[in-house]
Amino acid sequence: MSAPWITYRPELKVLDCTIRDGGLVNAHAFDDKVVRAVYDTCVEAGIDYMEIGYKGSQKLFAPDQFGDFKFCDEDHMRRIVGENESSLKLAAMADAEKTDYHEDILPRDKSVLDLIRVATYVHQLPVAVDMIKDAADKGYEVACNIMAVSIVQESEIDQALEVLAETPASTIVVVDSFGSLYGEQVARLVKKYLAALEGTGKEVGIHAHNNQQLAFANTIEAIVQGANRLDATVAGMGRGAGNCPMELLLGFLRNPAYRVRPVLQLLQDHFVELQESLKWGALVPYNITGQLNQHPRTAIAMVEDGESHDYVEFYDKIVADL
Amino acid sequence: MSAPWITYRPELKVLDCTIRDGGLVNAHAFDDKVVRAVYDTCVEAGIDYMEIGYKGSQKLFAPDQFGDFKFCDEDHMRRIVGENESSLKLAAMADAEKTDYHEDILPRDKSVLDLIRVATYVHQLPVAVDMIKDAADKGYEVACNIMAVSIVQESEIDQALEVLAETPASTIVVVDSFGSLYGEQVARLVKKYLAALEGTGKEVGIHAHNNQQLAFANTIEAIVQGANRLDATVAGMGRGAGNCPMELLLGFLRNPAYRVRPVLQLLQDHFVELQESLKWGALVPYNITGQLNQHPRTAIAMVEDGESHDYVEFYDKIVADL
Repeated sequence: MSAPWITYRPELKVLDCTIRDGGLVNAHAFDDKVVRAVYDTCVEAGIDYMEIGYKGSQKLFAPDQFGDFKFCDEDHMRRIVGENESSLKLAAMADAEKTDYHEDILPRDKSVLDLIRVATYVHQLPVAVDMIKDAADKGYEVACNIMAVSIVQESEIDQALEVLAETPASTIVVVDSFGSLYGEQVARLVKKYLAALEGTGKEVGIHAHNNQQLAFANTIEAIVQGANRLDATVAGMGRGAGNCPMELLLGFLRNPAYRVRPVLQLLQDHFVELQESLKWGALVPYNITGQLNQHPRTAIAMVEDGESHDYVEFYDKIVADL
Repeated sequence: MSAPWITYRPELKVLDCTIRDGGLVNAHAFDDKVVRAVYDTCVEAGIDYMEIGYKGSQKLFAPDQFGDFKFCDEDHMRRIVGENESSLKLAAMADAEKTDYHEDILPRDKSVLDLIRVATYVHQLPVAVDMIKDAADKGYEVACNIMAVSIVQESEIDQALEVLAETPASTIVVVDSFGSLYGEQVARLVKKYLAALEGTGKEVGIHAHNNQQLAFANTIEAIVQGANRLDATVAGMGRGAGNCPMELLLGFLRNPAYRVRPVLQLLQDHFVELQESLKWGALVPYNITGQLNQHPRTAIAMVEDGESHDYVEFYDKIVADL
């Protein structure tokens, strides 16, 4: 095609994870009105999935220290979405080893959830596989996010994909947890995932982080390579540098089913205010950890502290510890 | 190559245009200490060129309404760089029809400048060609930036390249003035420029804008396709959404001649403060004009006004006027 970017692939699906990944910025302490506004916007904007939060273990996370969407009990979700009488599908994330999945994930017909996304580090894969089977047995669509692949040996990724190809997960997501991947690396990974899953009917997804201002570009690169499941958040809200901004992604996708205008309304109604009190985005400390392929935790601490702009001291310390 | 991003091309050259493009944010009203700090940083960081400002016509622009680097008289520049006894080359931009180039661009041996960059819209090409010849005759290295190519017909770009191939300009720069190009479009343009200039020994450059958070990614894409002249600015400072951030670009380039640490020092010493008083970056109004391939002037007015976050009204107005 001479200009492929002006056409669209109808099989592309967009997942909004504002409340889930954005909840890592504020311990999920969102006002209900914000969660409801995100939900209403997803419906109006034609977004396919909304990930509303985590299925966090209440044995590991004290409910008085987190907002409800760290846990996504049925009554929490129904308070916002009722019976979810819309075409929007609802998702929750379940972290390997941080979820009491046997108990807390209800049978599909007792839940408003449609999709369970199992997030796993490569070393947790056996647990993740059991979680995938559990969720599929309960009747859910299941996806699996393999996190932090920028620090995993390729042979281990290959092995993980071989195992996941045999599970009932219908989507496997490339996750750039550290926001350190460049477009060529994303392209390689997406091609690798697609090759490993060929013939299974499974889709490949992309979950990008914005440490180097590459989340949107890397999402586009993944699309070009064949990824059909895309994660984004409103205003790019998400842990640390945040994610691929929904308002940019919908502007790029040419499918007329998607509308960017409701997202602009949501931005002005709620996210201008949120961005005045909470800090996320491609700030310099995140640039540095992204460049050096490091977990952003030290950068998050620096940004949350808010006083220091001593980027050189921060850089020197990370380089010294490499 | 299996992992081309970990190698480097020695022929790549980086140009810092912080004071030139960033000057469009503050009418070039920089303190001398900031200009000097940018100069010192370019030297320390191993950057190849620093574009210190414009050669603006004093008949068109009143000197009392602009800082000195709108004009770049010799004494303005020498106040900062002395005789420039460093390996850093100095550049100034001359806009077609906004420069008294016959008088204001001195013979090369009377100037601290090394490079004249002629910026032109396609319709101004005859003037630009005369400016290129004038600067080359005076002994300068010359580059030509064809602006706003996202709204120019391809046949006109082809014609412009055919003309420029015959001039003494040694670099022709792809300029995404509206920040509207996606990576695939940048790739096409860089390939087109390279093909048109094949055999002339001329290099292709890239000057990206960040309206859609794609300036860094598009610069990388241009590199991948063979562009060897790269524009960037500290903190991405530049008109509207700004440019490719130098601190990201140097982190990506693997050439050990470049050092990111001095840029981090400059950021903390001066740009934290500048960003508190001046507004640039990939703000929502710039996202919108970038998506819709519009000049950012309306978005700049909205951002400078500062009161309104009515993105929907802004979007509706632009869509209505399309």
